[in-house]
Amino acid sequence: MRTIEVALGTRSDPVHVGADLIGRPELLAPCLAGTQVLVVTNATIAPLYLETAVRSFGERDVRTLTLPDGEAHKTLVTYERILDALLAARFSRDCAVAALGGGVVGDLAGFAAATYQRGVRFVQIPTTLLAQVDSSVGGKTAVNHPRGKNMIGAFHQPVCVLADTGTLETLPERELRAGLAEVIKYGLIGDAELFRWLEEHLDALLARDRAALAHAVERSCRNKAAVVAADEHEHAGRALLNLGHTFGHAIEAGLGYGTWLHGEAVACGCCLAARMSKRLGWIDAEACARIEDIVRRADLPTERPEELAPERMLELMGYDKKVRSGRLRLVLLRAVGEATLSDDFDPGALRETLGMRNAA
Amino acid sequence: MRTIEVALGTRSDPVHVGADLIGRPELLAPCLAGTQVLVVTNATIAPLYLETAVRSFGERDVRTLTLPDGEAHKTLVTYERILDALLAARFSRDCAVAALGGGVVGDLAGFAAATYQRGVRFVQIPTTLLAQVDSSVGGKTAVNHPRGKNMIGAFHQPVCVLADTGTLETLPERELRAGLAEVIKYGLIGDAELFRWLEEHLDALLARDRAALAHAVERSCRNKAAVVAADEHEHAGRALLNLGHTFGHAIEAGLGYGTWLHGEAVACGCCLAARMSKRLGWIDAEACARIEDIVRRADLPTERPEELAPERMLELMGYDKKVRSGRLRLVLLRAVGEATLSDDFDPGALRETLGMRNAA
Repeated sequence: MRTIEVALGTRSDPVHVGADLIGRPELLAPCLAGTQVLVVTNATIAPLYLETAVRSFGERDVRTLTLPDGEAHKTLVTYERILDALLAARFSRDCAVAALGGGVVGDLAGFAAATYQRGVRFVQIPTTLLAQVDSSVGGKTAVNHPRGKNMIGAFHQPVCVLADTGTLETLPERELRAGLAEVIKYGLIGDAELFRWLEEHLDALLARDRAALAHAVERSCRNKAAVVAADEHEHAGRALLNLGHTFGHAIEAGLGYGTWLHGEAVACGCCLAARMSKRLGWIDAEACARIEDIVRRADLPTERPEELAPERMLELMGYDKKVRSGRLRLVLLRAVGEATLSDDFDPGALRETLGMRNAA
Repeated sequence: MRTIEVALGTRSDPVHVGADLIGRPELLAPCLAGTQVLVVTNATIAPLYLETAVRSFGERDVRTLTLPDGEAHKTLVTYERILDALLAARFSRDCAVAALGGGVVGDLAGFAAATYQRGVRFVQIPTTLLAQVDSSVGGKTAVNHPRGKNMIGAFHQPVCVLADTGTLETLPERELRAGLAEVIKYGLIGDAELFRWLEEHLDALLARDRAALAHAVERSCRNKAAVVAADEHEHAGRALLNLGHTFGHAIEAGLGYGTWLHGEAVACGCCLAARMSKRLGWIDAEACARIEDIVRRADLPTERPEELAPERMLELMGYDKKVRSGRLRLVLLRAVGEATLSDDFDPGALRETLGMRNAA
């Protein structure tokens, strides 16, 4: 087991990475206060890990809530179900909410923990590659709105993250690939060495080689922890973690949440950001090809879905949280391993990247 | 105009107190960033002050949303209406949400500001005495749940508070009296001098003497700012501001939100806390009589509503946010001007205070 500390002001919250961490109460005990715990999970994960996860909390008063699986349920309605469960159990402000599952469960349970009685302790037990490398670290919680992804939420740091890489063995193939999109993203935005490592070890990752997966999770968490420690509330550098996400969120909202997995949309978004960066003359054709190549090898999409018209996609991108006073800002690339947030680009380049016919 | 600074870590947010502050854009300009502002108000206040309030934001892109009036609307459903308005206007993260109205509008708009895109700027323009002396300062935002008041919310500090005492001239008599309950509370918990001043000037306040009202608002805000600066997230001292509120919230939830005004329930709660403190031998009969006397003079209730059975009230008190692992904690009095948070009391004293027949 490796432990990464996310340093935030006076606090430092541990991210434990390794096999068979679920069910070890000594990892969680130092992070909890009261005796009440609600474990929130989904119908896919419950039969696999819920019983073991409950054991992670030792002799505490543990309740469980099983939600339906999928991004389509990341709504205010499902969020309210978690609050209802907390109130029905009469849980007090020293309780903890634990998320056992992927990014959807983590975002929902995290937002409930952020707002129940104005904030209670939150524990992340991510069981997907995407949640282990990205969404469980850093304290972003949210639900979707029909007009835009993650539009309603809060920053609320987990007191502990248990990234049990053993759970990746039961992960469906499609979700494994979707998770790799975020690992590729870390390479692109600031870790050229990780990107080269991915080019070499992608087949091992797809074959679920234990050592390769553990390395990818740990390296990604270290990248994320460093960014979050420098800019917890996304005033500046943290926005770079959103490479591919402005395009990706528009795809997710446009097709209906859950049609493409978040990681699939992000992979496509990274390719679109790369092609736009090439169009602007910021990266060369070789860099762009490397990016499209690794996305293709991971069997992730490189092209926007045909059924989503470019005009609609551009409209949806306008709801992005990085927009400032009506002006779109995009995370683009200066090199493999160097991203930049910019609103200083030719709008025509964006329209051409999206494949608009009368791009001006 | 007097300005009180609420010092919070690296920030310091101004609370301006005085007549005719609404409509003066120079007070708000230093606290805003982007150009988009949503002013949230209610149907009672809109015809009186909305037009002037919009002028407070100068040349910005100001939208307005008018909600129905009353505590019964402080729900997740109304909260969602504010989020819908922000998204429909395509407001970005550098926008501001302003609350023009009483505590209900402030709590709702504040919770929306806390969670829209994970947090945008928030401005409070309180138009009731209760909101000016209490709810607009300190950053508590919330909505109610059928099982308990303010159970869902966030800490989110306003970047600026404009407490325009001119608005108190149009305040209904009943709301003026309800607001006085919170002023009395500040005296009781830590400002014996304010309590004595209230005993002398209560009639002037009820007659809406401008100087007396301005003094009461300013002194209350100073009291609150000091407590909040010392303990923003209510780990300790801030809980004392909840004197009378555990009883009061149970009354509000038990009768149905809006039946009694919040201040009326708090006034009654202060009397119950005083009588329980007397029963425990912590204050003497004279202190208790002074408290009941000023509440009665303000024409506020000193007795719990007859239609709410003590058993039901005790059950509802169990949902209080100060409960820790199932154990009720109450703010009680050691003297007029000295409150204490305690779970170290005879449960029988509480049952007797509530008027239970077979109190053990």
